[in-house]
Amino acid sequence: MRGKVKIDPIDVKIIKLLSKNARMTYKELAEKLGTTRQRISRRMEKLERTGVVQKYTVVPNFDLLGYSHLILGITVRAGTPIDEIVEKLKTNEHVMIIQKALGTHNLVLHVIAPKDMKEIQDIIESISKDIPGIEHMDVTFITETCKYELF
Amino acid sequence: MRGKVKIDPIDVKIIKLLSKNARMTYKELAEKLGTTRQRISRRMEKLERTGVVQKYTVVPNFDLLGYSHLILGITVRAGTPIDEIVEKLKTNEHVMIIQKALGTHNLVLHVIAPKDMKEIQDIIESISKDIPGIEHMDVTFITETCKYELF
Repeated sequence: MRGKVKIDPIDVKIIKLLSKNARMTYKELAEKLGTTRQRISRRMEKLERTGVVQKYTVVPNFDLLGYSHLILGITVRAGTPIDEIVEKLKTNEHVMIIQKALGTHNLVLHVIAPKDMKEIQDIIESISKDIPGIEHMDVTFITETCKYELF
Repeated sequence: MRGKVKIDPIDVKIIKLLSKNARMTYKELAEKLGTTRQRISRRMEKLERTGVVQKYTVVPNFDLLGYSHLILGITVRAGTPIDEIVEKLKTNEHVMIIQKALGTHNLVLHVIAPKDMKEIQDIIESISKDIPGIEHMDVTFITETCKYELF
């Protein structure tokens, strides 16, 4: 797929508008960009089909919902089969986001958990068990989102 | 605000559906949940007004768009005025997400940057300058998003 998707400045403008408000209608997007609803719809279909837009989602305030939001930054030993670990973690109901990475961490996991620290500890332990080659885990609790302007 | 927002199981269902697809219409949500468009609209307005839903957004594939996606996990010295740093960082065009945190890192920043490593280095340096009490920075490049089910 890489390098095969052609993206022009109008596609970028559509993504920027949707990243500010993913619920904008075709009509609103068309008016903002001086084009037709049909053209917007065709472009969005292309952006979705090619995976440039992976998802339309919400940014919830987990604190108000009664949950803790943790990021686990995981470093594994060289040679650890990351893809097998990812497949296992996908079925863990507490792991909401799984990202492969390069740098300090090889794997970034987002966990949404009840606020009780004992429960959080149990969840982290259950996740650790699914990662055989684990070398180090950084645990960070997100307490406040101050800016969120993805693109 | 904390603890003052009343959320019931139908609100949670709405947020779960929107986290899977934020572009669902009132009509689609109403049909799924066996209620009316008017009731869905009123509940969503409440969730937005109380900040339970902070934003509707997209999850783009930054790689396909020609960008690198970095997470900077920052640890600052005790007594560092985090809020002042956040205000400064808000105006940095490369810092897309700013989150206050507790644990290994005190501040989590998401940076969208061109793929050129020299440019990335310059951007990281410019960000570091805005964080006087910086003690440690973990730099992680997100290479692939394998799961994204926020809620």
